Amino acid sequence: MTLLALSTDFGADSTYVAQLKGVLISRAPGIPIVDVSHSLPVHNIRAAEVFLRAVAFAFPIGTVHAVVVDPGVGTERQPIAVQVKGMSFVGPDNGLFGRLIAIKGSKVVCLDRTHLFRTPVAPTFHGRDIFAPVAAELAAGTPIESVGSEIADTVPSTLPVASVVGALHYGEILASDRFGNLTTNIQCRAGAGYRVEVEGHDKPVPWVQTYGEVERGALVALAGSDGFLELARREQPAGLRVGARVTAETVLP
Amino acid sequence: MTLLALSTDFGADSTYVAQLKGVLISRAPGIPIVDVSHSLPVHNIRAAEVFLRAVAFAFPIGTVHAVVVDPGVGTERQPIAVQVKGMSFVGPDNGLFGRLIAIKGSKVVCLDRTHLFRTPVAPTFHGRDIFAPVAAELAAGTPIESVGSEIADTVPSTLPVASVVGALHYGEILASDRFGNLTTNIQCRAGAGYRVEVEGHDKPVPWVQTYGEVERGALVALAGSDGFLELARREQPAGLRVGARVTAETVLP
Amino acid sequence: MTLLALSTDFGADSTYVAQLKGVLISRAPGIPIVDVSHSLPVHNIRAAEVFLRAVAFAFPIGTVHAVVVDPGVGTERQPIAVQVKGMSFVGPDNGLFGRLIAIKGSKVVCLDRTHLFRTPVAPTFHGRDIFAPVAAELAAGTPIESVGSEIADTVPSTLPVASVVGALHYGEILASDRFGNLTTNIQCRAGAGYRVEVEGHDKPVPWVQTYGEVERGALVALAGSDGFLELARREQPAGLRVGARVTAETVLP
Repeated sequence: MTLLALSTDFGADSTYVAQLKGVLISRAPGIPIVDVSHSLPVHNIRAAEVFLRAVAFAFPIGTVHAVVVDPGVGTERQPIAVQVKGMSFVGPDNGLFGRLIAIKGSKVVCLDRTHLFRTPVAPTFHGRDIFAPVAAELAAGTPIESVGSEIADTVPSTLPVASVVGALHYGEILASDRFGNLTTNIQCRAGAGYRVEVEGHDKPVPWVQTYGEVERGALVALAGSDGFLELARREQPAGLRVGARVTAETVLP
Repeated sequence: MTLLALSTDFGADSTYVAQLKGVLISRAPGIPIVDVSHSLPVHNIRAAEVFLRAVAFAFPIGTVHAVVVDPGVGTERQPIAVQVKGMSFVGPDNGLFGRLIAIKGSKVVCLDRTHLFRTPVAPTFHGRDIFAPVAAELAAGTPIESVGSEIADTVPSTLPVASVVGALHYGEILASDRFGNLTTNIQCRAGAGYRVEVEGHDKPVPWVQTYGEVERGALVALAGSDGFLELARREQPAGLRVGARVTAETVLP
Repeated sequence: MTLLALSTDFGADSTYVAQLKGVLISRAPGIPIVDVSHSLPVHNIRAAEVFLRAVAFAFPIGTVHAVVVDPGVGTERQPIAVQVKGMSFVGPDNGLFGRLIAIKGSKVVCLDRTHLFRTPVAPTFHGRDIFAPVAAELAAGTPIESVGSEIADTVPSTLPVASVVGALHYGEILASDRFGNLTTNIQCRAGAGYRVEVEGHDKPVPWVQTYGEVERGALVALAGSDGFLELARREQPAGLRVGARVTAETVLP
């Protein structure tokens, strides 16, 4: 199944999203478009990476993602397309796709087939003039080799990686959702329990399965629905800052 | 016509909406999805009920609504599906669907067919793992009897009901929209006029047909487009609080 | 290709958008709907005009736009449809469509075929009861002559027009986007350079091709991706007010 999935920092109410969609609809008529998010934090590549961690493989095989968080638009940073595990991604080479490119079997091309672009290319809007036309092309079935030249050197992920020493995981808080629940870079093993400590909080944080197990406002740690350790308070924002250090020790459940 | 209509408090820009849609698109390919709202007030069941009051029957017969405002996710609260007047609703049994279930002829099932779920079910994300797969199933034409076991005991509506004594209606302000116009729980009879008083406002509020009949900033009462009494100021927020008491006396028009 | 493109100030999370879509989906089944924006500034006709300047022709020929920023809803202001350059627009006659109507070859009708409306027409919600049904009708292929009677007198655009004296353009800042980049009413000639001065800023503003050419926080002027002069700071909001005067002198590039 082909699908065009859009993630940008343009603002859902912006003319930029509309213009980008206008190009996609004109060049890939009939292909469904999903607005994944247009409210990614402005110019924040790391936040976009955390977002992609949860959604990159959430859609059916064959999905083409256009991901545009692009503070360097129009400069020498390369426009690229990435193919990995049956999904395609189009956007700037600024670290956004670093984790995806690191997956074994990924393929990356630099978008150098200018005849595919919308012309003239506005130096401030590659989303509309380069990424949208190429995403439409891929969605229409064109192989990735035909939209650019394969490259090996790309910008690595900007996300901090948790370190693991025996049963101990040293990580940090990466992002908050609308509920004030916080995700981290510590991967949870299914069925395992953890003894969790977090910077700025005196006592170990109780490990639970879901929010409702404790009283309103109590801080808990749990296995997030995306497989990473999550910190939350029941029906309240967790109130810890992004970047705070988290330690988790695997314990028998 | 089948349609998947989504109303949640996840945040339009969240990875949760994307993950929920990923499941729907994979399991009910080709069925149109409408994002009704993903900005419902967080954990606020009453606000979601007011919202549903206006949209539950706004779409064509056959629409399947997934409605997820679910502070008790993963606890003993039941996941349910409701069928009423040709529409289906899937979500938690926490009062959200109380008014719909109270409609004569409604049918309610508890979602206990675990083979339909996305597995493993994350205790914090029944939207993705239970409600989305069941909504997709219903949208694909599976009868409601095949997604759960009929139940009679469900959580009643959390909305306050206006009382009527002769020509007098005693109600309250339920919610505000983006314009600062306020809706209430007092149902308006077409063609009738009302003498309206509201807590925190000295004088009776003039009854009008539309905002433009008075000067900018004047407070008015009118029959809202959803059939309930509305309070508004022309081109300004009404500035009265949700919960304020409203009295309306039917008068000859 | 037919497409229904929606731009309103209803709020993306409002029941009004849902009700409007319910009508469109029921009356024009199968026609794709694009949410262009539901976050237009409330009751702000000028802001909606700036928005339309960028999106009116961004979608394929045949697109039907419903545009609803309508502070005068239910008063004597006329509901109209406009056809211009292969696109159709439905909404209130309050200046919103002034620039489009001024384009040579445009056609305007007053929506007076009440049998097409959703009844009863709520005096406060012509979006749902008049504009949506008529937009659905046009999307289904009904010619504009069949949805209303041609009229010549309409409300002109509310946008200030830049004046040009020789090589000098006198204009102003019209709007900001999510990045804090500012658009103006000064049209840029492709390939030209400009010497730009802006009210509230001492020195001439450097002319560049894209943001990344200067250091973070530096103010620049450039040709916006929509063909109008733009003011911006690299990776920061420009911080100048809407309405500030801008002078641009064409210089050899």
